[in-house]
Amino acid sequence: MTVYVAPVKDLMFVLEEVAGLDEVAALPGCEEVGIELVSAVLEEASRLAEEVIAPLNKISDQQGATCANYEVKTSPGFKDAYKQFADGGWIGLTCDPEFGGQGLPHLLSIPVGEIWNSACTAFALCPMLTSGAIEALSHHASDDLKARYLPKMISGEWTGTMNLTEPNAGSDLAAVRTRAVPANDGSNAYLISGTKIFITYGEHDYTDNIIHLVLARLPDAPAGVKGISLFVVPKFLLNSDGSAGARNDAKCVSIEHKMGIHGSPTAVMAFGEETGAVGHLVGEANRGLEYMFTMMNNARLSVGLEGVGIAERAYQQTLSYAMERIQGRVAGREGTLPIAYHPDVRRMLMSMRSQTEAMRALVLVAAASLDKAARCADAGERKRHQARIDLLIPVAKGWCSEQANEIAYTAVQVHGGMGYIEETGVAQYQRDARITTIYEGTTGIQANDLMGRKVARDGGAAANALILEMVATAVQAQGVTELTSMGDGLAGGVADLKAATDWIVENYVSNTASTLLGSVHYLKLFGTVAGAWLLVRSSIAAQARLVAGNGDAAFCRQKIGTTRFYIDQVLPLTASLLLMLKRGTSSLDAADLALS
Amino acid sequence: MTVYVAPVKDLMFVLEEVAGLDEVAALPGCEEVGIELVSAVLEEASRLAEEVIAPLNKISDQQGATCANYEVKTSPGFKDAYKQFADGGWIGLTCDPEFGGQGLPHLLSIPVGEIWNSACTAFALCPMLTSGAIEALSHHASDDLKARYLPKMISGEWTGTMNLTEPNAGSDLAAVRTRAVPANDGSNAYLISGTKIFITYGEHDYTDNIIHLVLARLPDAPAGVKGISLFVVPKFLLNSDGSAGARNDAKCVSIEHKMGIHGSPTAVMAFGEETGAVGHLVGEANRGLEYMFTMMNNARLSVGLEGVGIAERAYQQTLSYAMERIQGRVAGREGTLPIAYHPDVRRMLMSMRSQTEAMRALVLVAAASLDKAARCADAGERKRHQARIDLLIPVAKGWCSEQANEIAYTAVQVHGGMGYIEETGVAQYQRDARITTIYEGTTGIQANDLMGRKVARDGGAAANALILEMVATAVQAQGVTELTSMGDGLAGGVADLKAATDWIVENYVSNTASTLLGSVHYLKLFGTVAGAWLLVRSSIAAQARLVAGNGDAAFCRQKIGTTRFYIDQVLPLTASLLLMLKRGTSSLDAADLALS
Repeated sequence: MTVYVAPVKDLMFVLEEVAGLDEVAALPGCEEVGIELVSAVLEEASRLAEEVIAPLNKISDQQGATCANYEVKTSPGFKDAYKQFADGGWIGLTCDPEFGGQGLPHLLSIPVGEIWNSACTAFALCPMLTSGAIEALSHHASDDLKARYLPKMISGEWTGTMNLTEPNAGSDLAAVRTRAVPANDGSNAYLISGTKIFITYGEHDYTDNIIHLVLARLPDAPAGVKGISLFVVPKFLLNSDGSAGARNDAKCVSIEHKMGIHGSPTAVMAFGEETGAVGHLVGEANRGLEYMFTMMNNARLSVGLEGVGIAERAYQQTLSYAMERIQGRVAGREGTLPIAYHPDVRRMLMSMRSQTEAMRALVLVAAASLDKAARCADAGERKRHQARIDLLIPVAKGWCSEQANEIAYTAVQVHGGMGYIEETGVAQYQRDARITTIYEGTTGIQANDLMGRKVARDGGAAANALILEMVATAVQAQGVTELTSMGDGLAGGVADLKAATDWIVENYVSNTASTLLGSVHYLKLFGTVAGAWLLVRSSIAAQARLVAGNGDAAFCRQKIGTTRFYIDQVLPLTASLLLMLKRGTSSLDAADLALS
Repeated sequence: MTVYVAPVKDLMFVLEEVAGLDEVAALPGCEEVGIELVSAVLEEASRLAEEVIAPLNKISDQQGATCANYEVKTSPGFKDAYKQFADGGWIGLTCDPEFGGQGLPHLLSIPVGEIWNSACTAFALCPMLTSGAIEALSHHASDDLKARYLPKMISGEWTGTMNLTEPNAGSDLAAVRTRAVPANDGSNAYLISGTKIFITYGEHDYTDNIIHLVLARLPDAPAGVKGISLFVVPKFLLNSDGSAGARNDAKCVSIEHKMGIHGSPTAVMAFGEETGAVGHLVGEANRGLEYMFTMMNNARLSVGLEGVGIAERAYQQTLSYAMERIQGRVAGREGTLPIAYHPDVRRMLMSMRSQTEAMRALVLVAAASLDKAARCADAGERKRHQARIDLLIPVAKGWCSEQANEIAYTAVQVHGGMGYIEETGVAQYQRDARITTIYEGTTGIQANDLMGRKVARDGGAAANALILEMVATAVQAQGVTELTSMGDGLAGGVADLKAATDWIVENYVSNTASTLLGSVHYLKLFGTVAGAWLLVRSSIAAQARLVAGNGDAAFCRQKIGTTRFYIDQVLPLTASLLLMLKRGTSSLDAADLALS
């Protein structure tokens, strides 16, 4: 029932036809990244995911991580799977070759990441957090710190964590209270004390050491966001030869009992309960939050990717069930057919499928922008791509995570009563997906970021540049006989996005609060239209392949059918979202009246 | 955190101003049902719910029912709470006084039922199923069976169950295989054998006996739906004095491990594994499914009501959290304010609140129709109200259960990371709510019923009669200065409902499958507009009270604010739903292409 088959063919199609693999391969340092390499890497990842990791997913839900005496025991099979994962070199895929990484682009690591997340999201979280810690150290730490930590983190010998949240500092990190004071022992060390919560893989039994990155305040730090510094705090202090030595005063006091991702230990970390946790400053004092933000785009994209991974797995299992389960006669068809043929079930299956494909395309296109923003030779080009990625990230994170929840919900629905029974395994997808709209910034945080910083601040410039590309795609589709109506549909959706964007630019400054009331509507509208845009692009490519007689005709026709369904059944949501957005002022008045 | 306060004032307001308590009080047999009685009953129910049942909700999630050796141990406190519940006479509220019931109308039992469901849905399920069994026996059993079973079921001394589903007969009960053969022992008994699944409270430790109603086939029964009979099969056979005697061959072999409602034991029942389970035919042979359908409306309304109950409780807890939790500065406001003031959080809170109030009104209006259809002196009136209730039931069940899931999802979202931690208690609402769109007929089943049997079959007559009432409400609101814009909004929504209804009537017969593809869209459109209609009616009443200086002015203003919010932020969904509905044909083509 829970067999997972990595969608390599679909991934390759999007990489080649939508995300611009050839353009990324033309970037400095990406000379090796051809179709052969990418396809070989995806096949290799699929093997590990399908054979080793995916079978652990349900077990990890039923036998989650446990904590006793400050130690965490991970789910059955996780430790061994982690070793295989690390030995395969998967952690360092995008990392600096100077420290043992493979220097590959995000356009390769992101599709690989989808595969890990489909196989087991709870398992995939440890390498994801380690990557975040590696990235923070790579960009901001001293050469000495880099040399001591990066090679072992990139090889997977040690893992990394991100310690941001505190009981009173969640969405608002300005409220961080954890303290750091100079050790005054002749070293340049600091002593950290405070409690951090929601620390993913803050403790586990995989490795000899765990490297915590911790936000804390120095004694003389200014209040608010500009007084937070970043420290590296290892679980075991490093000996002079770089090996793990004495235990540091940083421990996991408990792990959370969560709705899902039971295999991922979510730690409450106590720093400095005894002598103070020894840490070293990363980069300059008081710039910790700024450093966090430089890696936020990757982390948020990774959470959007979790959504894609869970959605794909949920769809696979649901399609398989719906093609086996027989129940009742099917309207408009003869004979005994499985429930997949009931029109309402067909609608649910196609919603899941078309949304998943749209989400995947969006995340991969964002990954390509990340690579271009980092690697383009021309500074202007880098800047242009950075604006694009800054715009797309809140959409990719917020929209994909919300859609993943809807898709997992639909997976349970198609299963009927069986979906509510935990043994079936689909309820787990709904419970696992539930966190994705919350961590790394809730959907509301993403939406406010999109509306305020990414659209209103530049007067809609980055958004309108993207909208122009969408219009061009619609025009292109309208010019292809077989795709005219999907081009028309896309044009309508883009017009709604344009109207919403103009409305925000016009109203945000003068009516910030009432404009923000509809920020999530705008985020969903943006995601829905962006998804349509990319599906239409994939259908243009599929149609071209069909005409050229190049490739698998059935596969290409399926792509076109999927896009048509999305245009008919998903895209029309923009009409309502635009209406709701524009009623912000009267809605806020009404809310104030009702909640008074 | 999980304190529950029954919304008696809100319930009374809807009963008096929207659901027509005075009209129901004027029905034969309802002479006692005045405001004083109803309000006293609601207060009494509130006490039991708030003090005894609500505190068990979280415990029952953490320590669900367990099963060993064919016996079920219910959650801590449930058995004692059940005794208080039965002793209070709550089970027989609407039952026939001849057998110990109180003969009260559904318009009283339904608001009381909301309170039980808010307090603890898993607990409320046992009396709900017992009521279903009582109703089936009351309508269809012989006088002898009634006399032997009804008094003890109505008093709560024994409970009842409904045994319909089998592994291969869920939505399609025509596939039932459980067999019944004459006992041939000189009695009129039958021996039942077969396996039933998903049997709510199929076994428990509350009472001395459990009365199972079981669907099974007689040896000579025709195939399909017209060959299924209904049997009463007690756990313990009845002695000649009516007391529970020898153990019957009907046992619970296991209970399910479910996503939610852990306190409700969901049994796999084995009938006749040894000698055959002794049962008696209810009514005539081969009419079992027909008998089930006569009580389906009540059962489905009860599930819609579960949705209302869970939604109300989730809203209460979420509002309380959002008014305490402080995080970040609020756009457009000065000072330190809790997150309830963030525009996006305000939107979420008001969505929860306004939808819950709309759902409550719909369920109560449906309850009044149930009473009128059963009790009106005039046969024509009864028929008219029966058509109304037949139309409203799939909407009340399908829409309220879907909305409850959305509301519980939003409850988790407002709580952020804390919402994902089980101890907080809001994740339970999402898990508990998840079953409501599935049992007693999935949302797809409700939607197909609505579109095919309730709208297309009579050429839209019942729907158009309701739409005319909605139009009248819109016109009435448009005539009140303070409510003009909500009247306009309602008129727009009703126009969409009318357009959708006309489209269905025009297309259903000629294009059944592609019309059914959008059945859930139509159900949601219908529910959304019906909710708006009833909220506008409540606002017209609130405005009249304000003008008359009659009643709590702040309360009335809150009602108006809630309606305005719904009109702005919920009702606009109809635009998209109508578009999606009308694209059924091209969507089905696209789905067939993509899934080929």
